[in-house]
Amino acid sequence: MAIVKLTLQYEGTDFVGWQRQAEGRTVQAALEEALARLEGRHVPVVGAGRTDAGVHALGQVASFELTREMDPPALRRALNALLPDSVRIIEAELVAADFHARYSARDKTYAYRIVAGGLLSPFERRFAWHVRRPLRAEPMAAACRGLVGRHDFAAFRSTGTDVATTVRTVFDATLEPDDDRCRWPTGLAGPSAPALVFSIRGDGFLRHMVRTIVGTLVEIGSGQRSPQSVAAALVSGRRTDAGVTAPPQGLFLVRVGY
Amino acid sequence: MAIVKLTLQYEGTDFVGWQRQAEGRTVQAALEEALARLEGRHVPVVGAGRTDAGVHALGQVASFELTREMDPPALRRALNALLPDSVRIIEAELVAADFHARYSARDKTYAYRIVAGGLLSPFERRFAWHVRRPLRAEPMAAACRGLVGRHDFAAFRSTGTDVATTVRTVFDATLEPDDDRCRWPTGLAGPSAPALVFSIRGDGFLRHMVRTIVGTLVEIGSGQRSPQSVAAALVSGRRTDAGVTAPPQGLFLVRVGY
Repeated sequence: MAIVKLTLQYEGTDFVGWQRQAEGRTVQAALEEALARLEGRHVPVVGAGRTDAGVHALGQVASFELTREMDPPALRRALNALLPDSVRIIEAELVAADFHARYSARDKTYAYRIVAGGLLSPFERRFAWHVRRPLRAEPMAAACRGLVGRHDFAAFRSTGTDVATTVRTVFDATLEPDDDRCRWPTGLAGPSAPALVFSIRGDGFLRHMVRTIVGTLVEIGSGQRSPQSVAAALVSGRRTDAGVTAPPQGLFLVRVGY
Repeated sequence: MAIVKLTLQYEGTDFVGWQRQAEGRTVQAALEEALARLEGRHVPVVGAGRTDAGVHALGQVASFELTREMDPPALRRALNALLPDSVRIIEAELVAADFHARYSARDKTYAYRIVAGGLLSPFERRFAWHVRRPLRAEPMAAACRGLVGRHDFAAFRSTGTDVATTVRTVFDATLEPDDDRCRWPTGLAGPSAPALVFSIRGDGFLRHMVRTIVGTLVEIGSGQRSPQSVAAALVSGRRTDAGVTAPPQGLFLVRVGY
């Protein structure tokens, strides 16, 4: 028995999320359909983390059990030929029999892109949150430092989700200018206003946790709340002490560490 | 009477092209609808060049007659508030009464992005032609040099279009690696294979002219035809002596010169 680890990218725009659902296209279902065509049977796939509708992945990880012998690069090519072009397998590897994309994950890194003030380029509209007012990056960066550590993130999640604990450890949280952004094509910049990238790495994330943190940071950057209010929300655990939930299209699952 | 010159960008994916048509969303119609809401009457808009379904613009130019006094930056903001986010006005200017977006244009620059070999990132799929085989750039660049000058481009256009002459002047035509491409986000490159950008500037372009040139260049880069075959097609004027028509999503109207 071989376990296959897939690293994949997808644009989340046209999906209702990663996880298979009764209604709507999901990335998991697209992958399972491609595998079913290769294997001639249903092959259940496990994902490292669920992503919501409109959320993108640069390095989602999925695992499944392969019954036939198959060369990983050949498997990668065969899957890419069957998948829609909004999903690309960038690596396929054979891994130890106890590997599980979700339970073996040690950390996950998410990034969230914000374009603040001025115009949002039509070419970035699926890949950033456009905040019309300019943002002050320094208080936002200060608030990021308050996120690092082991905290109860109950205030920073969607209510109604059922988890054993809302305590998570954040290893790093930073806010930086996006200097490497798109210059489409031939060096032409497009009219977009400055972009910021929020990056966060932690041992796990609650539903909408990154988006709620980003919504809170944007309220800090626009002067509606203080950087210290993050610490206060971490202590109170009340959702109403945190900010709005940022929209999905700025969010990327960047990397899963094992 | 004031003439307004608009410089605009759009992502062509969800449009059936620039020009108003009986069926389907067009950029011109979106702009005229936004202007009608501002002005309370139909305002006809002239575009510098038609772009086909799926073709993008970084610097399309449009002109129209304004009857009311309006500050250009305020006009730009008001239009952007009314337009879909796939269309952005990046500049509005008052210009001389004899300005006409189409007839006053001296040159147009188009760019075409090609991703050759390997994988196409899901984030680039709307903005490049993915050619699965690797391409040799040198013979393609050599063929570009043969395009420069005053030529009859009858071989490089869609048949069935009705124009007075198929003679056009190409001022520059180059093929270069796209070093400035997207690094989404925070420096993460994605898995895309190398990208090439073909740029061409000329006094005018026939229908599908850039896309037919690009299709021909790709056949040259993959060894299916010689660089000299471009000169032969320019002389013969036969469509069958040129290559395939490249798909629309790699094409950008970059700039219109006046």
